[in-house]
Amino acid sequence: MTPTITAFEASPDRGRGLARDMRVRWALEEAGQPYNVRLLSFQAMKEPAHLALHPFGQIPTYEEGDLTLFESGSIVFHIAEGHPGLLPADAGARARAITWMFAAVNTVEPPIFELSLARVLESKESWYEARLPMLQARVHKRLGELSRRLGEAEWLEGEFSVGDLMMISVLLRGQAAGVVAEFPNLAAYVARGEARPAYKRAFAAQLAIFTAQARK
Amino acid sequence: MTPTITAFEASPDRGRGLARDMRVRWALEEAGQPYNVRLLSFQAMKEPAHLALHPFGQIPTYEEGDLTLFESGSIVFHIAEGHPGLLPADAGARARAITWMFAAVNTVEPPIFELSLARVLESKESWYEARLPMLQARVHKRLGELSRRLGEAEWLEGEFSVGDLMMISVLLRGQAAGVVAEFPNLAAYVARGEARPAYKRAFAAQLAIFTAQARK
Repeated sequence: MTPTITAFEASPDRGRGLARDMRVRWALEEAGQPYNVRLLSFQAMKEPAHLALHPFGQIPTYEEGDLTLFESGSIVFHIAEGHPGLLPADAGARARAITWMFAAVNTVEPPIFELSLARVLESKESWYEARLPMLQARVHKRLGELSRRLGEAEWLEGEFSVGDLMMISVLLRGQAAGVVAEFPNLAAYVARGEARPAYKRAFAAQLAIFTAQARK
Repeated sequence: MTPTITAFEASPDRGRGLARDMRVRWALEEAGQPYNVRLLSFQAMKEPAHLALHPFGQIPTYEEGDLTLFESGSIVFHIAEGHPGLLPADAGARARAITWMFAAVNTVEPPIFELSLARVLESKESWYEARLPMLQARVHKRLGELSRRLGEAEWLEGEFSVGDLMMISVLLRGQAAGVVAEFPNLAAYVARGEARPAYKRAFAAQLAIFTAQARK
């Protein structure tokens, strides 16, 4: 059964692929799994029909027959469990890949998200400039630790996995906020992710929605 | 093989059970799995021996033979996969429980963590009072959505699962920050978690470390 995901009707980042549907699209492309996309306006995301699928009124969701999932991490994991190539078969390696998924969303993403959010919501506030070095230092600390751990390795644990897919997706948000370039090995790691054919197909698919909307 | 987890030698919350080892202890107790604890000073957490286990220099870690994991979400999931009672057997219900784990760490915890962190790091800053309503509003929005979704249900999806374990652990941090009481159904949900015998055993175990340290 072809799953259906939801995505923004109007891309807030103008097709740069930073919304969380991109992670799900990338996983689906890595898995070779065709999918449908249902686009939602910001208003529709807050209406009862969508809130029944996603209690926090966000995208993406994932519908597959009777099953509805939300949270990009959970959806990506579900896709990875159902298709070969995204999770190692060895139990220990699999647990390590899952560890990196949680590290991406619970340790690396929050300070990057806070930095981006402050820029959107607080850049006109009197305290913005004074707080900025603290926000940047929090990101810098985590990225420095990740950079030391990655070293010159191609991926975080041997072969490419959902751990890399989630971590690179989070780092792409950091790159957009200008905080990845100072770590050349992380920038190269992100570029390796972007060079994967599955990533390119996913990126093109989300960009096409923005391009079509912009033409209207 | 009995696993070994790491925890703070000196509890930053004075034994209130808000550190992330508590989630892992709770899962181990639900699973009926005995475990060893290795206590770490704040200094030891930043030393190479620990950084080899945990690249971000935090607790908890989980060692079981050759396998080392970090990130409480990943460790709790690993425990749940290896023991009955924490993840539903039905594939769809299992995917929903995992969805709530990710919702706990990536959607509900970040604004609660930011509110708590601002209180620790920024309460003396000139902007603290001016920013506080915004931080509280972000938490309030997410907890309101969660409250509406939970309604009068006992747990998030039928039976208790790791999804509840992680969500209640996150809400306990919100309760400590004073933002849960205004949602009586969430407060009752947290209390149901705290009433579980496994939670009580885990809480007592972490409190005993604080009490022993405090006597020294």
